[in-house]
Amino acid sequence: MPILLAPNQAPSLQQLIDVVNQAGLECQLADAGSEPSLIIQGLGSLHSAGASELSFLSNPKLADQLESTGAAAVILRAEDYEALSFQPDFAVVLCNQPYVMYALLAQWFDQYRLQALATGWHNTAIIHDTAKVSPQAHIGPHVVIEAEAVVDEGVHIMAGCVIGAGSHIGAHSLLYPRVTLYHGVQVGARCIIHSGAVLGADGFGFAPDPRQSGAWAKISQIGGVRIGNDVEIGANTTIDRGALDDTIIADGVKLDNQIMVAHNVHIGAHTAIAACVGIAGSTHIGSRCIVGGAAMLSGHLTIVDDVQISGGTAITSSIHEPGQYTGVYPYQAHQQWQRNAAVISQLGALRRRVRALER
Amino acid sequence: MPILLAPNQAPSLQQLIDVVNQAGLECQLADAGSEPSLIIQGLGSLHSAGASELSFLSNPKLADQLESTGAAAVILRAEDYEALSFQPDFAVVLCNQPYVMYALLAQWFDQYRLQALATGWHNTAIIHDTAKVSPQAHIGPHVVIEAEAVVDEGVHIMAGCVIGAGSHIGAHSLLYPRVTLYHGVQVGARCIIHSGAVLGADGFGFAPDPRQSGAWAKISQIGGVRIGNDVEIGANTTIDRGALDDTIIADGVKLDNQIMVAHNVHIGAHTAIAACVGIAGSTHIGSRCIVGGAAMLSGHLTIVDDVQISGGTAITSSIHEPGQYTGVYPYQAHQQWQRNAAVISQLGALRRRVRALER
Amino acid sequence: MPILLAPNQAPSLQQLIDVVNQAGLECQLADAGSEPSLIIQGLGSLHSAGASELSFLSNPKLADQLESTGAAAVILRAEDYEALSFQPDFAVVLCNQPYVMYALLAQWFDQYRLQALATGWHNTAIIHDTAKVSPQAHIGPHVVIEAEAVVDEGVHIMAGCVIGAGSHIGAHSLLYPRVTLYHGVQVGARCIIHSGAVLGADGFGFAPDPRQSGAWAKISQIGGVRIGNDVEIGANTTIDRGALDDTIIADGVKLDNQIMVAHNVHIGAHTAIAACVGIAGSTHIGSRCIVGGAAMLSGHLTIVDDVQISGGTAITSSIHEPGQYTGVYPYQAHQQWQRNAAVISQLGALRRRVRALER
Repeated sequence: MPILLAPNQAPSLQQLIDVVNQAGLECQLADAGSEPSLIIQGLGSLHSAGASELSFLSNPKLADQLESTGAAAVILRAEDYEALSFQPDFAVVLCNQPYVMYALLAQWFDQYRLQALATGWHNTAIIHDTAKVSPQAHIGPHVVIEAEAVVDEGVHIMAGCVIGAGSHIGAHSLLYPRVTLYHGVQVGARCIIHSGAVLGADGFGFAPDPRQSGAWAKISQIGGVRIGNDVEIGANTTIDRGALDDTIIADGVKLDNQIMVAHNVHIGAHTAIAACVGIAGSTHIGSRCIVGGAAMLSGHLTIVDDVQISGGTAITSSIHEPGQYTGVYPYQAHQQWQRNAAVISQLGALRRRVRALER
Repeated sequence: MPILLAPNQAPSLQQLIDVVNQAGLECQLADAGSEPSLIIQGLGSLHSAGASELSFLSNPKLADQLESTGAAAVILRAEDYEALSFQPDFAVVLCNQPYVMYALLAQWFDQYRLQALATGWHNTAIIHDTAKVSPQAHIGPHVVIEAEAVVDEGVHIMAGCVIGAGSHIGAHSLLYPRVTLYHGVQVGARCIIHSGAVLGADGFGFAPDPRQSGAWAKISQIGGVRIGNDVEIGANTTIDRGALDDTIIADGVKLDNQIMVAHNVHIGAHTAIAACVGIAGSTHIGSRCIVGGAAMLSGHLTIVDDVQISGGTAITSSIHEPGQYTGVYPYQAHQQWQRNAAVISQLGALRRRVRALER
Repeated sequence: MPILLAPNQAPSLQQLIDVVNQAGLECQLADAGSEPSLIIQGLGSLHSAGASELSFLSNPKLADQLESTGAAAVILRAEDYEALSFQPDFAVVLCNQPYVMYALLAQWFDQYRLQALATGWHNTAIIHDTAKVSPQAHIGPHVVIEAEAVVDEGVHIMAGCVIGAGSHIGAHSLLYPRVTLYHGVQVGARCIIHSGAVLGADGFGFAPDPRQSGAWAKISQIGGVRIGNDVEIGANTTIDRGALDDTIIADGVKLDNQIMVAHNVHIGAHTAIAACVGIAGSTHIGSRCIVGGAAMLSGHLTIVDDVQISGGTAITSSIHEPGQYTGVYPYQAHQQWQRNAAVISQLGALRRRVRALER
C-alpha cells in the first residue's frame, strides 16, 4: 500500500496542480465547483484510491472504473470528461496527458521518502585515505570506498555498497544497498542504481592457452565502464568492464532488473531496456531504442536509433532501419505444439514438395 | 557430499519411520528380519549412499541401481519390492510415496544444520532505534535494519542483509546472507529467502518527459510488496515494488533463482516457478500453476489456476483454460537449422502457394 | 580507459616480447630497425591506442585500421605484415597468434592491479574461532567467515563476502566483493569468483505435501557444491547445492555472468558458458563444450564432450554427437513476423494439404 502523508503535511489539490503547471504540463480543475483546497494525502489507482487520494485515467479500457472509484479527485482528458455518463462525486482535473501528470506527482510524493534517507557518513563505513568523498555525500553503514575513488556532493550510497579504486560517482546519484562498482567505473550525475547491481566485473574473454592444450587463458579486462547522467540501472543488473576500451552507457538510458551488458557494448542516449535482456560483447545499440524483456542480442552487432525489439526476440544480425522487430515462437496447447514442431524440422523438405507440385 | 551425523547423534531406522508416520505418511519395515535398530547417519542416492545411509527408489528407471547400492536401507514401493529379482542385503522400508518420505526425512536431517545457525543479535548489526526486533529473532553480522522495520520471533537474518524502513518479516522466516528488502516490504511467516534476492526495488516505470523531448520521466514507484506465508524465494531473484498498488505473492509460492517479478504482478497460492523466468508488469498468475525455467510472460496478462507452462516458452497472451502450454523452437544440428529457418520467413508465401495448387 | 603504467614503471617492447616467449609463444620484432627499447605503458585497440601503447591485429576485418592507428607498436601475423601496402610508422611484432599474445600481455599488465589489492585481514572481518584461515590469505572489510571454513594461502576475499560453515577456498583464489558461499562449498585453487555470485543455495526441490493438499513440502538440499581449479564464475551467477549428491564444476570451466546452474548439474573440464544461460537440475555437460549466451538446457540431459550450443537455443533432449546445435526463431520486421507466425500454428495442417495434393 502506498504510504499516505499525514493530513497536516499533505498538499491541497491546487498545490499539486501548480507543481505540474510549473513542470511545463498544462492542467486545471474542470469547473469552479470543484474544490481546489481538497487535501490530497497520496496517489492511488482508480480501483484502490481512498477518499483522500488522487487518481487518473490514462488507459481508456479502465473508464468503467470511474463510476465506482473512491478517489477524491481524478485526472481526466477533456474528451473522457465530456464522455462521462454520470455526475462524478470526485473533483476532476483536466490534463491532456494524465499519465505524465501522474508521473510528475508520483515524483513529488516520493521526495518525502528520499528526504528521509539517512545523511552523513556512517561510522561503520570504511573510506580509504586517498578517496575524495564530498562532505555533502551520504555514506551508509558498512559501505567500503577504495583508494582514489571520488564521490560528489549529494550522492547517497546506501548500506553495504562497495566502490572500487579510482571509481567516480557524479553528483546526486543514488545507490541502493549492496551495489558493487569495481575499480575504474565512472557514473554520471543523478543516476539511480538498484540493489545487487554489479558494474565493472570482468568481461568474458578467453583465448586458447598456449601453455596447456584444451585450456583457456584469461584475457585480463583492462578497459573500464562509463555511465552517463540520469541513467537508471535495475536490481541485479550486471555491466561488464571493457576488454581494452570502455563499455559505455549514454545519458538518460533506463535499464531494468537482471540485464546483462557485456564488455564493450555501447547503449545510446534515452534507450530503455526491459528486464532479463542479454547484450553480448561489442554490440552497439542506438539512441531512443526500446528493447522488450528477455530479448537477447548477439555480439558485434549495430542497431540503429529508434529501433523497437519485441520481448523474447533473439537479434542475431545488425538492424539498419528503425522500426519494430520480432521473433517469438508462438505458444500453443502442448499437444498442438508437438504436432507443429515436428514439421519445423522438415520445412525445407516441405518447400521442395510444394515446388515439385508446382512443376 | 551430504554431512553425516555422528553415530552417537544419529537416529535408528525405526525412529525415522516414526517421524514419517507422525507426519501422516504410512511406511513400515518390509519384514521382521529387517533391523529396526539400524543406525542411519544420513541420506544418499542409490549410487552414492554408504553403509550407514538410507536411500530410496522413486524413479523406476533407476531400479537397476538397487542391486549395486551400498545403502543400509532403501525406501521402496510395495510393487518395486515384489519385483526384486535378488535377495537384498539392505533393509527395506515400504512406502507408497518414496519421494515424499525422502522429502520428510531430508527436512528432519537438515534441522541439525538449522539449529546450529548463530543465535542472538550480532554486535556489528546496525538496528535503528525505532525498529521493533523480537528478542527471539537472530540477527547476523553486518545486518542493517532501518527505521520502523518489524522482525518477529524466531526469524533468522544472516550476514549482510539490509531490511528497509517499515518492512516486516513474519515469525520463523529465514533470510540467507546478503538479501535486500527495500522500504515497505511485507514478508509472511516461515518464508525462506536466498542470498542476493532483492525485494521492493523500483518497478520499471517511465513516461515521456514533458520537460525534455526524447527523455524519460521516472514514475516513482510508491506501491509495496506483500509476500504470504511459507514462500521460498531463490538466490538473486528480484521482486519489484508496485507502481501504486502492491506486488503480491500468495501463500506457499515457490520461486527458484534469478526470477524477475515486475511491478504489480500477482502470483497465486502454491504456484511453483523454476529459475530464470521473467514476469512482466501487472500480469496475474493463478494458483497451483507450474512455470518451467526460462519461460517469460508478457505484461497485463491473466493466467488462470492450474496452468503448466513449459520451460523456455514465451507467453504473450492470457490463458483462460487450465492445461499445459508450450512454444519452444526445436533445436537441430546447425546446418539443418539454417536450411529450415530460411523457410520460416516465407511461411506465408508457402501457404499461398499451396492454396494456389489446391485451386 | 585502460590505466597506463607510469613511464618509469613501464616495460620496454623487448621485455614484453621476452615475457611472451617465456610463456611458450613465439614472437619477435619484424626488423632490426624497429626499436626494442620502446617504452610500452599499456595496451590499446587499433583505433584507440596512443603513442606509448601496443596494439594487435587479430580480426582481418580490422586491417584497414592499421594505417590510421596511433599505436607505438602492433602485433601482426607474418602474412598481414607482408600484405601491408604502406610503410608503417609503428614498430611491428610478428606472432602467428596475435590474440593469444595480447591475452598474455593483458595478464601481465593486470598483475599491477592485482598486486595492489589490500593485504592482511581487515579488522572489521568476522572470522569464527574454528575457521582455519591462512595467515597468507587476505580478508577484506566486513567479510564473514563461519565455523570450520578453510581459506588457503594467497586467497583474496574482498569486501562483504560471506563464507559459510565448513566451506573451503583453495590457494590463490580471488573472490570479488559480495560473493556468498553457503555451508559446505568446496572451491579449488586459482579460481576467480565475481561479485554477487551465490554458490550453494538450495536447489529447487519440492514434493506434494502429505500434510496439506495442494501445498509443497520442501526437500531439504543436503548435498554440496564442488568447484575445481582454475574456474572463473561471473557476476550474479548462481550455482545451487545438490539435493543429495554434489553439484560439480570441473577444472578450467569458465562461466560468464547471470548463469544459473541447478542442483546436481555436472560441467566438464574447460567448458565455457556465456551469460544468462540456465541449466536445469541433474544435467551433465561434457568437457570442452561451448554454450552461447541465453541458451537453456532442460534437466536430466547428457551432453557429450565438444558440443557447441548456439546462443538463445533451448536444448530439450540429450546430445550424443559432438558438433554445433541451434534452435533460434528468426526475427523479422514485426508485421512480417505476425504473418508468418500465424502459419506456425497450422503447420501440421499445411503438411497434410501438401500430402493431399501429392496423391
